[in-house]
Amino acid sequence: MRGMNGKRHIARRMADIQPFYVMDILARARALEAEGRDIVHMEIGEPDFPTPAPIIEAGQRALAAGRTHYTPAAGLPELREAIARHYATRYGVNVAPSRIIVTPGASGALQLVLSVLVNPGEQVVMADPGYPCNRNFVRLLDGEPTFVPVDAATDYQLTVDALRASWTGRSSAALIASPANPTGTLVPADQLRAMAAFVEGKGGSLIVDEIYHGLVYDADAPTALSVSDRVFVINSFSKYFGMTGWRLGWVVAPEGYEHELDKLAQNLFLAASTPSQYAALAAFEPETIEILEQRRQAFQERLDFLLPKLRRLGFEIPVKPQGAFYLYANSARLDSDSFALCNRMLQEAGVAATPGLDFGSHRAAEHVRFAYTTDLDRLREGVERLEDFLYRN
Amino acid sequence: MRGMNGKRHIARRMADIQPFYVMDILARARALEAEGRDIVHMEIGEPDFPTPAPIIEAGQRALAAGRTHYTPAAGLPELREAIARHYATRYGVNVAPSRIIVTPGASGALQLVLSVLVNPGEQVVMADPGYPCNRNFVRLLDGEPTFVPVDAATDYQLTVDALRASWTGRSSAALIASPANPTGTLVPADQLRAMAAFVEGKGGSLIVDEIYHGLVYDADAPTALSVSDRVFVINSFSKYFGMTGWRLGWVVAPEGYEHELDKLAQNLFLAASTPSQYAALAAFEPETIEILEQRRQAFQERLDFLLPKLRRLGFEIPVKPQGAFYLYANSARLDSDSFALCNRMLQEAGVAATPGLDFGSHRAAEHVRFAYTTDLDRLREGVERLEDFLYRN
Repeated sequence: MRGMNGKRHIARRMADIQPFYVMDILARARALEAEGRDIVHMEIGEPDFPTPAPIIEAGQRALAAGRTHYTPAAGLPELREAIARHYATRYGVNVAPSRIIVTPGASGALQLVLSVLVNPGEQVVMADPGYPCNRNFVRLLDGEPTFVPVDAATDYQLTVDALRASWTGRSSAALIASPANPTGTLVPADQLRAMAAFVEGKGGSLIVDEIYHGLVYDADAPTALSVSDRVFVINSFSKYFGMTGWRLGWVVAPEGYEHELDKLAQNLFLAASTPSQYAALAAFEPETIEILEQRRQAFQERLDFLLPKLRRLGFEIPVKPQGAFYLYANSARLDSDSFALCNRMLQEAGVAATPGLDFGSHRAAEHVRFAYTTDLDRLREGVERLEDFLYRN
Repeated sequence: MRGMNGKRHIARRMADIQPFYVMDILARARALEAEGRDIVHMEIGEPDFPTPAPIIEAGQRALAAGRTHYTPAAGLPELREAIARHYATRYGVNVAPSRIIVTPGASGALQLVLSVLVNPGEQVVMADPGYPCNRNFVRLLDGEPTFVPVDAATDYQLTVDALRASWTGRSSAALIASPANPTGTLVPADQLRAMAAFVEGKGGSLIVDEIYHGLVYDADAPTALSVSDRVFVINSFSKYFGMTGWRLGWVVAPEGYEHELDKLAQNLFLAASTPSQYAALAAFEPETIEILEQRRQAFQERLDFLLPKLRRLGFEIPVKPQGAFYLYANSARLDSDSFALCNRMLQEAGVAATPGLDFGSHRAAEHVRFAYTTDLDRLREGVERLEDFLYRN
């Protein structure tokens, strides 16, 4: 009854879990660089900026002070309080610190929440395209992702109508992201409210990934906590706060789940990294926020530069994204197979981007994700190379 | 079909996952301290020593150099190489760096390995008493822990005979720990070899938790890698290397599993903490090892002090442990209920210890775990208080 491959004995769930194609692209990009090629990286889902200096310094002070022992499983009390204050300050939403669980990245947060909510055989509704790990966390629990194909008509987001159409007696949760990866689009407040009400009415849970909050341009992204206190919100210090490698995120849970989340966090993680937690205390300081807002403007300039350029090159981007640092571009006019196109762009033009395959199967071969996680000069260089590559013959 | 508690919707597996009783004890100890009581902490499973200075300094240098982006999912190549060299230097065992996956603590390592190996409904054989998270990781995957009661006759360890008796057609793995928590005992090399051969013969996998390696007294603990290259070894920078709060561990996997572990690590963790990984590069330096060896001697002095004292107080400790920093003591002569005894010791004597309940159910009410993770003066104070408490009337 066990999967046997030669001398290997591998659980069946692993067959459903795909590696990220972008890792292949990245590895080949690094190999080309090792041969002396210059590569413009537009495949990488992390800010190019280093962690802001005030956070670095807080981390160094924590180390100097010997802050190297375990924290409580749910996180440092002062960090949970700082996160609660952040909701009050930035969103005007009142969240008790007891509802906040600090986790090893949003990865840990997602795993924690899904493990507490989803039984084997139960379904979790999510958009296709979407963040690839989501479906794999569900599979790890022997749950079933329910993919809802989304397109430009709904800004690539689930809607309450789509939820109503895809919810079954086996559905236990829906997972949305705003801003989303790979599309950068937002869920409007009225849809958030309607989806939360629908899922709660069905006795399920709405999980809202807000890890790109803060990185929003010409728009205002409401936190789902402002429309319901029964949703699970996932957030992270990685993207807006520039702390990717520190592996620190959090969950805001509805009242009544604290105990279950805490006992599972004890078992899964013991706790998040202590130096990271002390460093993150500086993330909400005014001097840090000032740096982060400058970076947000830099991302916005990149978006404003790249979007029209890619469109002119023949990539279709029907919706202007309002957040994150991604452009999800239809490349069907250029090549019917975006995976092949990404490989050719890398090999022939020295431009790395992520094929749609990484984000699902709905029209995946027609799409490429460009990340503007490199500076304007490099983006300009990348666009010139793509123009040469696509139109020189 | 879903568990409903009031407005909560909680997956069934959560009912099988217990919080650590020691967390209750710790919380009540902290509350007593807040009231001004002095508490001797013998319940805490982490070294009292801070992270050694060379590791702290390496962490500070990494932060100053902006080492804050993601590493590859399997870990920094130079750290995987350093761990491989450690096996060569300390054990004379040759391990290819490609077989080493760096993880967020041994918690991440255990989860990774069990997820790759264990199907829902399959069994994992483990000792009772044992580390409480092990069974919970198995339950999270909807696998089934098979508990083998162990006692002093086998140094509280599984043996090949016990494995043979408990292995069924549904067993997929066995999990052992050497040195073990809560007993501090080792698995001898001949038993390691026999268990590895038995499990491999059955088409299963042997997982060996070596997180207390390095903390061994008057004995030599062989790594399971010296008897078989088909075992999975779990290790950590937490205990011997004094890096608990940094959340950093590793897996050594048999050849052929690298790809599955890597793709799952991508999904579960993205990667372990980057500052932690850079800091850990200093863990194997001679000046660090010198500090760690002094600490090992300090632990040994504590063991040599505490063991006879506890025996004289009426705790039965039939086997002298040779590793870790725990004494697993039979308290049946003092109280038939060790949980009640721990509560009374805390309340009346100001001494915190962990009830056997945290480690399983086999004679759990007869046992208490004492951790010698506090200095000799405090241990002396604790013993005096216990003597007063137990014999003053």
